[in-house]
Amino acid sequence: MFIQIEFESEKPIYIQLKEQIIRGIANGGLKEGESLPSVRQLASDIGINLHTVNKAYSLLKADEFISMDRRKGAIVNPIQKKATDEYIEKLKEELRNNIATAICKGINKEEYLKISNEIFSEYGEEKK
Amino acid sequence: MFIQIEFESEKPIYIQLKEQIIRGIANGGLKEGESLPSVRQLASDIGINLHTVNKAYSLLKADEFISMDRRKGAIVNPIQKKATDEYIEKLKEELRNNIATAICKGINKEEYLKISNEIFSEYGEEKK
Repeated sequence: MFIQIEFESEKPIYIQLKEQIIRGIANGGLKEGESLPSVRQLASDIGINLHTVNKAYSLLKADEFISMDRRKGAIVNPIQKKATDEYIEKLKEELRNNIATAICKGINKEEYLKISNEIFSEYGEEKK
Repeated sequence: MFIQIEFESEKPIYIQLKEQIIRGIANGGLKEGESLPSVRQLASDIGINLHTVNKAYSLLKADEFISMDRRKGAIVNPIQKKATDEYIEKLKEELRNNIATAICKGINKEEYLKISNEIFSEYGEEKK
């Protein structure tokens, strides 16, 4: 798997792990129905605690990025066709904070939208 | 002041306070050089602990949204003219995570850019 953990980062490892898996789903590296490595396997591969992997998987499950299958373990959920109103509200709140900071830090609207656009390209969004 | 705290939110109050002040700077409600209320005053106005306000102010200072003036207390820093490379890298990493989630949750590029654009309008960015 493509997981890269920065051990010196201020960001907790379980959060980094969660984010990397979400990026993997978004860029198509992890496909719908695909099994993630077992908690034990992934912990051993990365050299981290079982508990840390468990925590990441639990959050991914709570946020419906993955499901737990009795036989297959953690499997990737399909990318949603249409966003819920609840998620859209959450996204707006996140972007209100993110954009407020960006404005204070000297990023204008054109720069911000250009960066966002480039990141969609990184995820190969135009292919979808 | 315009501070609105959701006491039932999962988000810690000091983070909410920090975010609200950054939004205030971004939308021009808080102007360069303006004094924020004293820690004691704001804590009393909102009905929260002194320590919570202190924590928010400390973070705002560490991230250079405000400065501490011996006489005036906490004052608003100017909006930056040009973003540093360091901040741009940080923003990109945040947006990589935010956009990966948005893709999984069924938001496409057009919808995402439209929401971002609308939020810049909320901050009155076109006036600047």
